[in-house]
Amino acid sequence: MNIRIKWLRDQLKSMELDGMIVSNPYNVKYLTGLDAEGVLIVAPKENVFITDSRYIEAVNGQLTIDDEIVAYDVRTLSKFDYEGFFMDCQDVGFEEKYVTYEVYKRYLQTYQVSLVETDGIIENHRVVKDEEEIACIQKACEITDKAFEHAKKVLHYGMTEKQLAFEIEKFMIENGADGLAFDSVVAFGENTSMPHAVPTERKLKSGDIIQLDIGAKYQGYCADFSRVIFVDHVKDEWVSAYEFVREEQQKIVSCLKDGANIKQVIKDREVDYRLKNYEVMHAFGHGVGLEVHEEPVLRSTIENYCKENAVIAIEPGIYKPGRFGIRIEDTYRVTKEGCINLTKSKKDAVIVNLENGGKN
Amino acid sequence: MNIRIKWLRDQLKSMELDGMIVSNPYNVKYLTGLDAEGVLIVAPKENVFITDSRYIEAVNGQLTIDDEIVAYDVRTLSKFDYEGFFMDCQDVGFEEKYVTYEVYKRYLQTYQVSLVETDGIIENHRVVKDEEEIACIQKACEITDKAFEHAKKVLHYGMTEKQLAFEIEKFMIENGADGLAFDSVVAFGENTSMPHAVPTERKLKSGDIIQLDIGAKYQGYCADFSRVIFVDHVKDEWVSAYEFVREEQQKIVSCLKDGANIKQVIKDREVDYRLKNYEVMHAFGHGVGLEVHEEPVLRSTIENYCKENAVIAIEPGIYKPGRFGIRIEDTYRVTKEGCINLTKSKKDAVIVNLENGGKN
Repeated sequence: MNIRIKWLRDQLKSMELDGMIVSNPYNVKYLTGLDAEGVLIVAPKENVFITDSRYIEAVNGQLTIDDEIVAYDVRTLSKFDYEGFFMDCQDVGFEEKYVTYEVYKRYLQTYQVSLVETDGIIENHRVVKDEEEIACIQKACEITDKAFEHAKKVLHYGMTEKQLAFEIEKFMIENGADGLAFDSVVAFGENTSMPHAVPTERKLKSGDIIQLDIGAKYQGYCADFSRVIFVDHVKDEWVSAYEFVREEQQKIVSCLKDGANIKQVIKDREVDYRLKNYEVMHAFGHGVGLEVHEEPVLRSTIENYCKENAVIAIEPGIYKPGRFGIRIEDTYRVTKEGCINLTKSKKDAVIVNLENGGKN
Repeated sequence: MNIRIKWLRDQLKSMELDGMIVSNPYNVKYLTGLDAEGVLIVAPKENVFITDSRYIEAVNGQLTIDDEIVAYDVRTLSKFDYEGFFMDCQDVGFEEKYVTYEVYKRYLQTYQVSLVETDGIIENHRVVKDEEEIACIQKACEITDKAFEHAKKVLHYGMTEKQLAFEIEKFMIENGADGLAFDSVVAFGENTSMPHAVPTERKLKSGDIIQLDIGAKYQGYCADFSRVIFVDHVKDEWVSAYEFVREEQQKIVSCLKDGANIKQVIKDREVDYRLKNYEVMHAFGHGVGLEVHEEPVLRSTIENYCKENAVIAIEPGIYKPGRFGIRIEDTYRVTKEGCINLTKSKKDAVIVNLENGGKN
């Protein structure tokens, strides 16, 4: 039995929906295990995956009777087939956060039902991970930790941000990752002040801060991790910024457990930022799973509670435009009692001394 | 002056639109050169790029007075600022193919205007490339050709699809690519029958067909290229399939030039397929640019004409489920007189002999 689709069917029932069109590929993968492009129709009588000729062979090879899903090549379906899926249905859910306005209009015409907006039913369910999912994230985190160790070893003067980003990607893939969970942030010196810096040809030199925000993907599941490295020298201002960020992360970690009020936890942290005159430039964290940014988002503007077996990246940072930025980020599993770190790299400030050939 | 935005303003005028909200990141990049997340507002009095604190520093560093764009951090904008952008406007265009139903509803509320669906205004303009764009695509194609040569050199028995895919990616990045234009298709043996095969742990062995569908990205612009390699042995059936595909590609190329009727060209090819009892599994080709799949799509179901300086990938293929597939693909520049090949690898059948250590 496909227990995830069974869960969805129970949800739809409680919302008085007769069915649902699932279009978001991460939700499709979560419910079906399939990576192919296509739409999952959860209809009263059956579950249908509509794909195209590029994928149909792979899909049919992967699905078994236990999946309880029939796959069709889109070309073989007629107007009547589409109308038949939701025969006698009134209200059918669609994913308003994923479906474009054009596709919404097409669905209306194709399925001949009343379409009801649904707001993250499946995304919210994905917050709590099962053991198999956590094992994949854990493996992605392990590879990421190792990639960080590798990054420290290959550093040398004159290396570009792009080169270091590539070294990290190469290492991850050679060590079992499917690929990257997201485009790596690898920033040197003044570029660290941009939270989403794209790697450039900027060369590493003595006195630089290096900001890494990296993550491997393993069997579809992501890791998210950030560290800074100081090259040869450290300024006092950086040390105090580093200690501040590290303490803020620790304060959040110490509050998050099953049932914790995320909004209040983050509000308290924002007070610390104001007291130090630092600006809050982005959310303090987010869920991690099939996507690197999932629910819940750690913001003070959203009512949200922590759940057991959620996986959450916590990433406070501070940024001084044109000068420097420092962010520390780890991926955690939330338990009844607290948080377990899945990325295990040490959080002490890392100073790499390249003046004597890279020995720390 | 920003001539692309000027062009868009002329278009909007002719469509009796007072402005436009540009949300598709490829269209934003095309109009502004910016890679940051955000929305471009083309309003009567100004062009506004609304981004967030993660990107604002980089955006302000990149924009000059000639761009004629003012950038704002979304947090600094009030309800009244949003309503002010389209003050006294009636109809404002939005991209119905990109904007989700949820965002459409949010735009309605935020901008307080009547939103009019626009169907690919900018995408259709992007079909015809300028010299700078073509130079980038040409460079992406050069890197891709070289990566194919490299792939042939590193082949060995027991190598997995994943390993070969990684070798190709590594080579592209080390040779100047920003990254991949798309996830590489690297398929061995029976896996070649799936046009969108994802690289697996399948190991290479004697008698395999190898299908590569690869492309580098250079300064944001894509290449798209496919070849097959026969390992040690070739079956007669493969040779005839290969010759068929190669001839089909040549027939399309010989017809495409400024003004050519794409629909008719493809209809004629479909007759060839029917005569040979081959199935048409995907479009025969597509535009290539900032995205690897752009307008025009080469299908017999769409009314479409070729334009000078369009860049088009032509990719006929045939697929025998569970047995084999063969696809040849090159990226071409369309001229007044015909097509110029931008990917220059030879199209003769490649047989790699690994039995005597990889010498051809």
